[in-house]
Amino acid sequence: MSRCLILQSEVLSFIERCMLAVGTQPSHAACLAEVLVEADLRGHYSHGLNRMDMYVKDIRTGICEKSGEPTVDKETVATALVNGRNLLGPVVGNYCMDLAIKKARKAGIGWVVAYGSNHFGIAAYYSMQALKEDMIGMCYTNTSPLVVPTRAKECMLGTNPISVAAPANDGDSFVLDMATSAVALGKVELHHRRGDVIPEGWGCDSRGLPSTAPAKVLSGGGLVPVGGCETTGGHKGFGLAMMVEVFCGILAGSQYSKHIRNWKVTDRVADLGQCFVAINPANFAPGFKDRMSDLLSLHRGLEPASLGNPVVVPGDPERFSIQKCSTLGGIPYYISVVDHMNNFARSIDVAPVLPTNRPVVK
Amino acid sequence: MSRCLILQSEVLSFIERCMLAVGTQPSHAACLAEVLVEADLRGHYSHGLNRMDMYVKDIRTGICEKSGEPTVDKETVATALVNGRNLLGPVVGNYCMDLAIKKARKAGIGWVVAYGSNHFGIAAYYSMQALKEDMIGMCYTNTSPLVVPTRAKECMLGTNPISVAAPANDGDSFVLDMATSAVALGKVELHHRRGDVIPEGWGCDSRGLPSTAPAKVLSGGGLVPVGGCETTGGHKGFGLAMMVEVFCGILAGSQYSKHIRNWKVTDRVADLGQCFVAINPANFAPGFKDRMSDLLSLHRGLEPASLGNPVVVPGDPERFSIQKCSTLGGIPYYISVVDHMNNFARSIDVAPVLPTNRPVVK
Repeated sequence: MSRCLILQSEVLSFIERCMLAVGTQPSHAACLAEVLVEADLRGHYSHGLNRMDMYVKDIRTGICEKSGEPTVDKETVATALVNGRNLLGPVVGNYCMDLAIKKARKAGIGWVVAYGSNHFGIAAYYSMQALKEDMIGMCYTNTSPLVVPTRAKECMLGTNPISVAAPANDGDSFVLDMATSAVALGKVELHHRRGDVIPEGWGCDSRGLPSTAPAKVLSGGGLVPVGGCETTGGHKGFGLAMMVEVFCGILAGSQYSKHIRNWKVTDRVADLGQCFVAINPANFAPGFKDRMSDLLSLHRGLEPASLGNPVVVPGDPERFSIQKCSTLGGIPYYISVVDHMNNFARSIDVAPVLPTNRPVVK
Repeated sequence: MSRCLILQSEVLSFIERCMLAVGTQPSHAACLAEVLVEADLRGHYSHGLNRMDMYVKDIRTGICEKSGEPTVDKETVATALVNGRNLLGPVVGNYCMDLAIKKARKAGIGWVVAYGSNHFGIAAYYSMQALKEDMIGMCYTNTSPLVVPTRAKECMLGTNPISVAAPANDGDSFVLDMATSAVALGKVELHHRRGDVIPEGWGCDSRGLPSTAPAKVLSGGGLVPVGGCETTGGHKGFGLAMMVEVFCGILAGSQYSKHIRNWKVTDRVADLGQCFVAINPANFAPGFKDRMSDLLSLHRGLEPASLGNPVVVPGDPERFSIQKCSTLGGIPYYISVVDHMNNFARSIDVAPVLPTNRPVVK
């Protein structure tokens, strides 16, 4: 498939235009555009421009609120329960993460939980806000049921991601952002479209048996927790997915587990639960960033098991992707994705996104 | 191997006797005995009586302090940095978890980090303290390097466990307690002793290649992170192990990663880093325990993929083990383990542990 290059500012503006066309509050449209473009820059195309139409539709159908602000229901110096008021996920996410950071400045930690939220894009976008303040950031969200618990055969939990970011010296950082399933749904869908089998340990069929057939995983089966089968620790991935649900839906009083609407079904509001944390290392042992840099160096300096496949730390692959975009002078997209989005834009009377005429060298 | 049954009170008293014989402060000996017996009751024999001699030796050689109390270096209403003063791990653990709970009562959350600590037994012992207060508890510790990072061939991280406990109605609970490696070292050792191969996805050899030979994993190789190889998400387990290190060694200013002394080598103090958290659901949405009970029921009620292999939630296998001990009227131990410990007790002039004459029915 051939690709084209689009300026970051043009993608931002395009997403904003589309969101504004359906009546989104301008600051909210900008919030969403920022998160989606960051996902694409980081190489996580499944969570970027590719999903824009979903957000536009959510606003257009009124299933998601187009304006307003989240509110605090309850708080202490270090915690808060936030009502997301069914606003766009990034609006809720930014509000909560800002609040968590403010609390961490005073109390050393801020633990903020939201109900009434929506899809917020990549979790790392929020955990990384803490890096600007030299703090550790964390972010969790529940999602629609797509994962089959260990020993079961029915989807009961979402891909419930965990993101943790920690600052090191000279702008370096550790940025973990992982689904608690073995892989994301998008990877299975991609193999299905290509007609490829998937590796063992990604999903199961409707009987709960391991399957390498994407069609079986996508219809009636489901993703499996990270760790795969029980012998190789799949129950640990399952436990982590449930832990995320405890921090999100159970603590927030939002929807949770099987009660969350099905993926891509928008017959009712999402009412997702999300959790945002900031921890201020200044309240613990001095020298945090020095130790963090040493920890990263220790790992990056390891001799690789296979030549040409260097040891990387969480956040490195995304750093390479950002560097690549910077070298190219834009974000590379598949032309098919751009065409799809431009057709969609036309349907809501929005000017198309314009690629540059620069080549995308792999 | 044949087994015998020992009264819980007798195991407790035996461990206390042994620890007192080498000069341990009585309250510290009691702390340690409680944690080790709880591990055995929960079926985690690798962390119970089986490890008593290690703690006795640590006190006898003076590598670990026999008396004193941890102290607080720094604190806010919601956080604390604790100096474990090289005391027994359970002494540091109890002190920190108590402090976290006290802070959570006032501020909604308590995040306490300790340096200068030692092995503390099972992490769930501490996270579960929060259940008594109807709070969520968390506990993390770094450990000696035994795990080979994704793409590498050298051990760089410990099995760095994560434990999270959350209360439900009627004394029910969610209790996650997992190493971030695919399996614990003890499981590989057990297969080695039996002459069995291990499943793929547990460990690698000295070249960093997957291996099913326990001998290769134990000498020169290492455990792999949960998730196995990179295709099946091993980099996620690696990321989680590093996250635990951020919460422990990096935040606490203790030893971390490769700087921690090797497993079973006690040539210098351990100076482990540990993290203890309590979160008060009363500061978030009302009805936490009801939702928690519903979440547990949803999962336990799932139709199993394989008949006779019911879906369980984290903490259920341990609950079954405790019920079994209660039915038996004692804790079942392999006679070889009891003999070993009694020989050890004799070497320090301590009266042996006395099994009951009741049978152990499987």
